[in-house]
Amino acid sequence: MIEQYVLDKIRSTFELYGFAPLETRAVEPLDTLLSKGETSKEVYLLRRLQDSGDAAPKSDDQLGLHFDLTVPFARFVTENHGKLQFPFRRYQIQKVWRGERPQEGRYREFLQADIDVVNRDTLPFHFDTEMPLVIGDVFRSLPIPAATILVNNRKVCEGFYRGLGLEDTAQVLRTVDKLDKIGPDKVAALLTETAGATDAQAAACLALAAISSTDGSFADRVRALGVDDPMLDEGLAELLQVVEAAPGLVRAELKIARGLDYYTGTVYETQLQGYERFGSICSGGRYENLASVGNTRFPGVGISIGVSRMLGLLFGQNALTVSRSVPTCVLVALPSDDQRAACDQVASALRRRGIPTEVAPTAAKFGKQIQFADKRGIPYVWFPGEPHTVKDIRSGEQVEVDAATWTPPTADLHPAITGV
Amino acid sequence: MIEQYVLDKIRSTFELYGFAPLETRAVEPLDTLLSKGETSKEVYLLRRLQDSGDAAPKSDDQLGLHFDLTVPFARFVTENHGKLQFPFRRYQIQKVWRGERPQEGRYREFLQADIDVVNRDTLPFHFDTEMPLVIGDVFRSLPIPAATILVNNRKVCEGFYRGLGLEDTAQVLRTVDKLDKIGPDKVAALLTETAGATDAQAAACLALAAISSTDGSFADRVRALGVDDPMLDEGLAELLQVVEAAPGLVRAELKIARGLDYYTGTVYETQLQGYERFGSICSGGRYENLASVGNTRFPGVGISIGVSRMLGLLFGQNALTVSRSVPTCVLVALPSDDQRAACDQVASALRRRGIPTEVAPTAAKFGKQIQFADKRGIPYVWFPGEPHTVKDIRSGEQVEVDAATWTPPTADLHPAITGV
Repeated sequence: MIEQYVLDKIRSTFELYGFAPLETRAVEPLDTLLSKGETSKEVYLLRRLQDSGDAAPKSDDQLGLHFDLTVPFARFVTENHGKLQFPFRRYQIQKVWRGERPQEGRYREFLQADIDVVNRDTLPFHFDTEMPLVIGDVFRSLPIPAATILVNNRKVCEGFYRGLGLEDTAQVLRTVDKLDKIGPDKVAALLTETAGATDAQAAACLALAAISSTDGSFADRVRALGVDDPMLDEGLAELLQVVEAAPGLVRAELKIARGLDYYTGTVYETQLQGYERFGSICSGGRYENLASVGNTRFPGVGISIGVSRMLGLLFGQNALTVSRSVPTCVLVALPSDDQRAACDQVASALRRRGIPTEVAPTAAKFGKQIQFADKRGIPYVWFPGEPHTVKDIRSGEQVEVDAATWTPPTADLHPAITGV
Repeated sequence: MIEQYVLDKIRSTFELYGFAPLETRAVEPLDTLLSKGETSKEVYLLRRLQDSGDAAPKSDDQLGLHFDLTVPFARFVTENHGKLQFPFRRYQIQKVWRGERPQEGRYREFLQADIDVVNRDTLPFHFDTEMPLVIGDVFRSLPIPAATILVNNRKVCEGFYRGLGLEDTAQVLRTVDKLDKIGPDKVAALLTETAGATDAQAAACLALAAISSTDGSFADRVRALGVDDPMLDEGLAELLQVVEAAPGLVRAELKIARGLDYYTGTVYETQLQGYERFGSICSGGRYENLASVGNTRFPGVGISIGVSRMLGLLFGQNALTVSRSVPTCVLVALPSDDQRAACDQVASALRRRGIPTEVAPTAAKFGKQIQFADKRGIPYVWFPGEPHTVKDIRSGEQVEVDAATWTPPTADLHPAITGV
């Protein structure tokens, strides 16, 4: 019920920003899943049980479960580009699967909630500044700790590395991405080993990665490192726009790299305050080259909430609770089996007015029936009779009522979700 | 958007009856999927791409995608029976997968929406009469043709066959289940060939299958066939309760068998009026033996709406439409790029009051911006200025407004879904 509540909040915020719902099949051809080149994601392949005896199908016929929602979305856009209105804004909330070793916050099957905007040919940069605003509204609508969105821009990193004289900027990026895992000394060693960096170049890369600010001051600190490159300038200007559009929510964090992903400019990660050690629960970025048809490109920008990951971490800390275990607000007590039809009529009258209601399963003693409600957290027990009465089993208060008019307090109508 | 609307209606009706949401993983061990014995469902097996070169894993390690929501639910109940409050009522709305040949109304990946009630040891029969009432409320909440729920009871069939002197009642049931596909002559021939029926016994089975009534008269017509058996009597009494609990919604239809499924009593199928030729879009029944732990059984009754199947058939007939292609109610026009921040503030003020709003992507001519809204069916374009105005682009009416107070008519706030 908590997950459903969170999904409803995410969905309604996405819709307030005009994102349209899209659902793609869970299964894609393997060549679609791998079409964006190298991926660190472990794909699950499918085959029919009844085909087990046969030779494995040729790889160009193989089907796999999608490991994210961006690659299937790119496939959808290229297949339907003639029918879509651009810029095209969609949200997509679905399960994805990865053959990973399960651990806290990492699952083999998990829910993601994505928004993306794609356009034909070029996509204005203001959409990059919009993403954190949407996500900020989502998180503010939930009873969870405050979120900080960490932002970087690959143009800053690539321009800086290039301006330093390093050629294999992709290799440098992948190495710096390991900073939180292996620490600065090992990153420096790897940079000299695998990316041909001098000690000074490696130190400059680490100095860049150490820069962080909640305002525009990061740009001055980057320029103070003395590297000059047009792509670096472009990246700094873009990053400045994102940071300044959402004061208090966004922080420039120049070590964010997003590893092997397909991003070409802005990249996002998100931390919940108090849960920083668990890493990002909402990530994304700008991709110029994910979708194309012939010479036409469909650049996009998007961000993905790791719903299962976020809820897994919060549940692990008992940070979210629900007021009852069932949607039921009222249990209609059953005085005797031959009164079931009358009890069903009371339930039906309450349901017609939107009040979730069950009738007791058996004509047990009323004490047992109240226990049935209490064990599930159902707040009200209705006693049919002349007059009908309803009892708030939390306070013990019992009042005369009419099924055509009685309404519980709004706070009791549905299970209440609260943070701790 | 139509699917989402339909799912929301299904969900809220299920919750009005006190069913709690449950989601189980899409992937189950193959032995769980096949534990209920013979199945006609084609299962998809999984393996990790990175394991492709290895020998196939042993069958007791194999994982597959669930092909329905009842078998995973039974697994969930047996695993968690110590923690659940019984009777346990849950709904479950998820994708399922079957390796079938795709055709109209049949998919390899599709959405089902299930409700089930399970209890420890025995489950009172009144839950069998409740299922059609829930489903009736679901269908009445949707802009679709009226539904008829066809009900039978396996005890009627098995008792009747046994009373006739036929031993292999399961084989008779499977054969009669083919009636709509192969016709009565072939069913009669098969019954004599494979179930050892005489011509008279085969004729009696067909006579039973031909009985149908919207009231209790079916029972008299069964008894007029002159077969006597205690299980038959029990089945007729149960079937009578289901039919009489929902006049106008339920029809006793004694040919309904539900093939290879695990049902032991009541069985349900559902037709939409005008779509009878497409078969059932909502099926289920009573199962006494699906879940057990040691000597403890957890009998249940449930029903499953074939959401994708139903929507596929209705979409195929253009029977459902949506008033616009995006959630957006208001497009804020952008007079010039330097006014984007002011336009964002208007959008933000409207969103805070629950009005889905987008800002125009570029400062194109207003005619183009109105076209942008029109192509998506967005009803209102907001022109910032002094004063602000909003234009209903359907009527052309334009009025002075304030972003802090203006509210569109409720009917325009969200896309409207209508049936034809």
